[in-house]
Amino acid sequence: MKNKSSLPTMKDVAAEAGVALGTVSKVFNGIPVGESYRLKVEEAAKKLGYQVNNYARAMRTNKTNTIAIIIPQINHPFFSNLTEFICRQLSERNYSAYIAVTDRNPEAEDRCIRMVSQHKADGIIALTYNPNLENVHDIPFISIDRTFDGSVKCISSDNYSGGQIAAAKLVQLGCKKLLFARNGSFTPGETDKRGAGFENWCQKHGVPYESFITGIEEKELLNLIEESLKNGTFDFDGIFCCTDKLLYQIRDLLHQWGLRVPQDVQMIGFDGINDFWTGEPICSTIVQPLEQIAKLAVDSILNFDNDTTPRLICLPVRYHAGPTTKDGIK
Amino acid sequence: MKNKSSLPTMKDVAAEAGVALGTVSKVFNGIPVGESYRLKVEEAAKKLGYQVNNYARAMRTNKTNTIAIIIPQINHPFFSNLTEFICRQLSERNYSAYIAVTDRNPEAEDRCIRMVSQHKADGIIALTYNPNLENVHDIPFISIDRTFDGSVKCISSDNYSGGQIAAAKLVQLGCKKLLFARNGSFTPGETDKRGAGFENWCQKHGVPYESFITGIEEKELLNLIEESLKNGTFDFDGIFCCTDKLLYQIRDLLHQWGLRVPQDVQMIGFDGINDFWTGEPICSTIVQPLEQIAKLAVDSILNFDNDTTPRLICLPVRYHAGPTTKDGIK
Repeated sequence: MKNKSSLPTMKDVAAEAGVALGTVSKVFNGIPVGESYRLKVEEAAKKLGYQVNNYARAMRTNKTNTIAIIIPQINHPFFSNLTEFICRQLSERNYSAYIAVTDRNPEAEDRCIRMVSQHKADGIIALTYNPNLENVHDIPFISIDRTFDGSVKCISSDNYSGGQIAAAKLVQLGCKKLLFARNGSFTPGETDKRGAGFENWCQKHGVPYESFITGIEEKELLNLIEESLKNGTFDFDGIFCCTDKLLYQIRDLLHQWGLRVPQDVQMIGFDGINDFWTGEPICSTIVQPLEQIAKLAVDSILNFDNDTTPRLICLPVRYHAGPTTKDGIK
Repeated sequence: MKNKSSLPTMKDVAAEAGVALGTVSKVFNGIPVGESYRLKVEEAAKKLGYQVNNYARAMRTNKTNTIAIIIPQINHPFFSNLTEFICRQLSERNYSAYIAVTDRNPEAEDRCIRMVSQHKADGIIALTYNPNLENVHDIPFISIDRTFDGSVKCISSDNYSGGQIAAAKLVQLGCKKLLFARNGSFTPGETDKRGAGFENWCQKHGVPYESFITGIEEKELLNLIEESLKNGTFDFDGIFCCTDKLLYQIRDLLHQWGLRVPQDVQMIGFDGINDFWTGEPICSTIVQPLEQIAKLAVDSILNFDNDTTPRLICLPVRYHAGPTTKDGIK
């Protein structure tokens, strides 16, 4: 008979059931496994008395098999593609997604958090720019791109490396003076590192550069660029843009001023959004690994209590040579 | 004292409260109105004893202020734009959206229907191609594009008129022999009428035409077109495509065979998807009124019990002259 002071562990259950530890973990976390495996594990857990202790905790009461996704908008390919990947990952595990399209409205985000508090969803995967978001420390919560104080886990692309890669690539392709252009939310987040990596690389390698950084409206940033063009102070021959969409708009402006891309000015974007029509990025860009971000976010939220992954994970990005740099012209 | 046989109606409540009938309906259906109006209506309902009878029914027990949206995929601009509009409409009324991205998986749709049966959502707005979808007759359910037997309400674009407009426009622009090209689900639905309207117009006006219609894979349809090109039997100078995406792909094929669009072949698509980069359709197209579809779907589902709108509503489409017809070249 088992000693009371030595409570059975997942390992004991696995040994008793004759299955791998991963299988036990899956069963306890509601991830589908073959029916015969599930029965073996449940039998072993019962026999060892595991159920009374840890099992009951693992199988949360009011489990809903639903994960809430907070997303600012869905009519943007970055968000809709990421959401699609998350939904597919959840669906494969027999989970549903409750998607809250918040339009950056804090109330919609609060509603989601209340849902989880009231056990109507098991956790949240959030893309949020709400600086005042609170109460996310007490519930299963995975953030994408946005970092929080405390223990909130964040999954992101390796934005810093992305910025470095972009700077190095532009210089390698012959650019002499670089520009970093960014518009966006001022809520601190991982995406800030795109500029940090870019600027750091330029400083380290003595490459002259400037940074144009404005708030969320693209108009403001485009005005800055246009002012430079008008005053004849625009002497950049390489631009790193914080998004592909911004690149598209700046390129339009350069074309209006008679500058050719990539002959006169080379440009690298960020995101790697596939164009709906061609299925390929429209520009040279730093490609975010959306599918991997989605997979890791789902793995982490479904295994939240036992997840030992670090607080911040930055997944590798890659450079795509498109028609806005000299290496991408066909 | 009121006679028992004459139960108070919504009209009585409106008269007692001194507000419009629409205001009473809104309050009873949980649609936000001014606080003072809500109080007046509730007071009047209480005073007249309305609460005991109809009011209790109207204010469903377990009201969740959540509407489920069934959508086959979210990484497609037609679906993501429509979803965004639906979410905004719901949000304006303090409702949340539970979005199920089904990937055409019937299980995911069944989960949604169960949710409503279990009072976890108040109703469903569905874009579904599942031919076996059942149990939708007993719950608040609004279908978009897909028609069902029985009393299920459907909201759609006026696909039939769209087909007629496309045929008439191509002929007006000088085309002599027309082609209708469609790939898609064989589940009967409103979108079938795109071809029906087109063919009907051609027949009525004695215009020669053919129809290439295949299953959901675009490849199959593109093969048909390529076979015609190869055999030299492709003598169409006007093509109506059932989607903008299909138009894009067929145009690519024509270009490969040295045919110019719109000089040699004019093309009209369907959907009117705005390109993410330019914010405009990429082709001449029949534009679907997505925002109006979303608004009507939300109005109908939130007012389901009292909704007197007809079983099928086809909202007007409009023609957009883009770069794939001679009237659209700048």
